Amino acid sequence: MLERETLIVSESDIAAIIASIGIDQLMDDTIDALQAAFFEFGNGAIEIRQRTGFVYDAPEPGLVEFMPSMRTRQSVAMKVVGYHPGNPVNRQLPTILATNSLYDTTSGHLRALVDGTFATALRTGAASAVASSILAAPQSRVLGIIGTGAQAVTQAHALSRRFVFAQVLIHDTNGDHARSFADRTPFLHAPVSIVSKAEVLARADILVLATSNPVGAPPVLANGLHQPHLHINAIGSDIPGKTELSATLLQTAFVAPDYRIQALVEGECQQLSPDAIGPELHELVKAPERFWDQQQCFTVFDSTGNPLEDLVVTETLVRHAECLGIGRKITIEAGVYDPLDPYRFDAARAVARAS
Amino acid sequence: MLERETLIVSESDIAAIIASIGIDQLMDDTIDALQAAFFEFGNGAIEIRQRTGFVYDAPEPGLVEFMPSMRTRQSVAMKVVGYHPGNPVNRQLPTILATNSLYDTTSGHLRALVDGTFATALRTGAASAVASSILAAPQSRVLGIIGTGAQAVTQAHALSRRFVFAQVLIHDTNGDHARSFADRTPFLHAPVSIVSKAEVLARADILVLATSNPVGAPPVLANGLHQPHLHINAIGSDIPGKTELSATLLQTAFVAPDYRIQALVEGECQQLSPDAIGPELHELVKAPERFWDQQQCFTVFDSTGNPLEDLVVTETLVRHAECLGIGRKITIEAGVYDPLDPYRFDAARAVARAS
Repeated sequence: MLERETLIVSESDIAAIIASIGIDQLMDDTIDALQAAFFEFGNGAIEIRQRTGFVYDAPEPGLVEFMPSMRTRQSVAMKVVGYHPGNPVNRQLPTILATNSLYDTTSGHLRALVDGTFATALRTGAASAVASSILAAPQSRVLGIIGTGAQAVTQAHALSRRFVFAQVLIHDTNGDHARSFADRTPFLHAPVSIVSKAEVLARADILVLATSNPVGAPPVLANGLHQPHLHINAIGSDIPGKTELSATLLQTAFVAPDYRIQALVEGECQQLSPDAIGPELHELVKAPERFWDQQQCFTVFDSTGNPLEDLVVTETLVRHAECLGIGRKITIEAGVYDPLDPYRFDAARAVARAS
Repeated sequence: MLERETLIVSESDIAAIIASIGIDQLMDDTIDALQAAFFEFGNGAIEIRQRTGFVYDAPEPGLVEFMPSMRTRQSVAMKVVGYHPGNPVNRQLPTILATNSLYDTTSGHLRALVDGTFATALRTGAASAVASSILAAPQSRVLGIIGTGAQAVTQAHALSRRFVFAQVLIHDTNGDHARSFADRTPFLHAPVSIVSKAEVLARADILVLATSNPVGAPPVLANGLHQPHLHINAIGSDIPGKTELSATLLQTAFVAPDYRIQALVEGECQQLSPDAIGPELHELVKAPERFWDQQQCFTVFDSTGNPLEDLVVTETLVRHAECLGIGRKITIEAGVYDPLDPYRFDAARAVARAS
C-alpha cells in the first residue's frame, strides 16, 4: 500500500523551516528553483492553466482565484488565493490568504497542503529577482519601493539576494506603513529613506511597485524623470481596470510579463497593444544573453503571478519540510477497504454500523 | 479575532457521521439540498465556473480536474478530483480520489477540507435522484444498472429513496463486480439479477449507466427494444471522445444535461447538435410541471458533474460534522501577527529568530 497521508505545512511549520535554515537560504532556493522551472517551461515538463475565479463586491470587495499547474509525471499544483483588502483592518488577517496543494499525478492523491500566504509573498519576490537579474543594470545600487506592505518585504529581500543596494528609497500613502518598513527589512543593510514618488522614480535603479489602490483610481506612477536604465517590477495586486503605471510611461519601456495572456487582462499590459509587449519571463530565462542590451534601457517586469511560480514554491517548501521532519501528516482521503463500495469505510466502522 | 481554524473532514470522519445519522438521512439531506440549490441556481445566489484540468497518458492514463463554485456572500467551493482507472488494481485506491474545500468569501479563509471521493459518489447519486424524480415514471418498479462499480452503489441508493423498486437488473463486463453488487446494496430490498445488456435495456423503467470504458471504444448501449417511458441516468466517467449511449439511441430521447456546455464536450451530448439538447437540470427543477409529459416518454439525464453539486454535498457534510462535533480543527493559514511582515510569524518565533 502506498503513502496515503497528506502533509500539512502550516504557517507555524514554515516558521520552523525558516528558524532551521534561515530566510536567506529559503529565498535563494526559491529563486534558483524558479529560474530552473522557467528554463524548463514550454518543453512539456511543466504545464499551466489560466486562472479562473470569482470576483465580488459583497459582503466586502474581494476575489477568490484558482491557479493550476503541473510538473508532468509528478505533481499537479493548485493554489487557491483570496484577495480581500479589508482583511488587515476588519479582521487582522493578511490581504492575501492562500492555500497551495500538491496532487500526485499517478493516483490523484493529495500529497501536501501548504499555507500559501507566505508562499505567495516568497515566490512573487523570487520572480522579481529572476526578472531583474536579466533586465536590470548589474551595478544597480538604489532600490526604490512604492507601496510598502507585505509584498514589498519579500521583494526587497529577493532583490537583495541578487543586488547590493547602497540606498533604499520608499514611498507609501500610508505613513505608518512607510515608517515601519525599515524595521521589517533588517536584511537590507542599507539606509531606508521616505521620499516623494517623484524622487523614488527619479533616483531608483530598480523600482518595485507593490500597491493595492482601488480599481478605477489613476495610475500610481505617472510619467517623470527617471534613470535611463531604470528597471521596474510592477507586482501590485492585479485586477482588470487597475494599473500601477501610466500608459505614457509604460509605452516607453521594454515590457516583459510573467504570463502574457493574463497580463493583457489584469496587468500593466492592459494598456498595451499585444505587439507592443515583449517576451515572457521564461523566454528571458532561456536566452538571457539576447536581452543584455536591455540592462541599459528602461524595462518593466509585469508580474501578475504565473501558476508555475506556485508549483515551484510549494515544491520547495514541501521538500524542506520533508527533509527536516516538519509538518503534520494526516489521512484525509478515501482508502482501500473496498474500491467498489463507497459505504464500506473500514472493517471497524462496518461492524459498528451493523451492530 | 475570528475563526482561523480549518475543519478537516476525513473519510473516517464521514464514516462517523454516517454511523451517527445513517446513510438514508445523509442521502435524503443531500438530495433535498441539491434540489434547493438547483432551484436557486441562475439568480445570482450560486455561480459556477467551467472545470479545467490536466489530462495525461503517463505514468498511467489519468486526469486531475478542478471544479469551482460559489454560494454568493458565503462560500467558494473547490473540488480537485483525480480520475485514475489504474488505482484499484495497481494501488488498491479508488478510481476517483478527490478533496473538496470551502473558502469563506469574506476573508478567503479555508473553512473546511473534506474527503471528496465519498462526496462525489453521494452527490452524483443525489443528482440522478433529482433528475429521475422529474423525468422518470413515478410508478417505476424495475431498476436497471449497467456498470456496477462504486458509483452504481450510490446511484441505486439515491434512486431507492425516491422510488420503490420491485426488481433490479444488472450487467457488468466484470463478473466479480456484478456478483458482489447485491452485497454492496443491502438498502435495495429487491431481488438483484445479473442479465444481458439487452435485457436490462428492454425491461428497465429507470436505467443507470455507470461504466468507465476506454476512449474510442464503441458505446456501451446500442439501440434496442426498451420501455416507452424508459429514463436513463448516463453518469459514467466523462471524457471527450467517450460516450455510453449510441447516437441512434440518444437521438430518440429527450436529453437533459446537468451542465450543458460541459456535456457538449465530454458527455452524451457530444453526439447531439446543440439544438437537439433539452433543458438543463436546474430548469427542470424550477418548473417540473412543464416536463411531467416526459415521464411517459424516453428520457436521458446526461450527468457530467456540475460544480454546484460539489458545493452542496460539501456544505452538507460540513454542516453535519459541525453539528456532531466530528472532524479535526487545525490551523494552516497565515495569522494576525503582522499583516505587513511575511517574516514575522508570531511573537515566540520572532524572539527565537532574534536570539
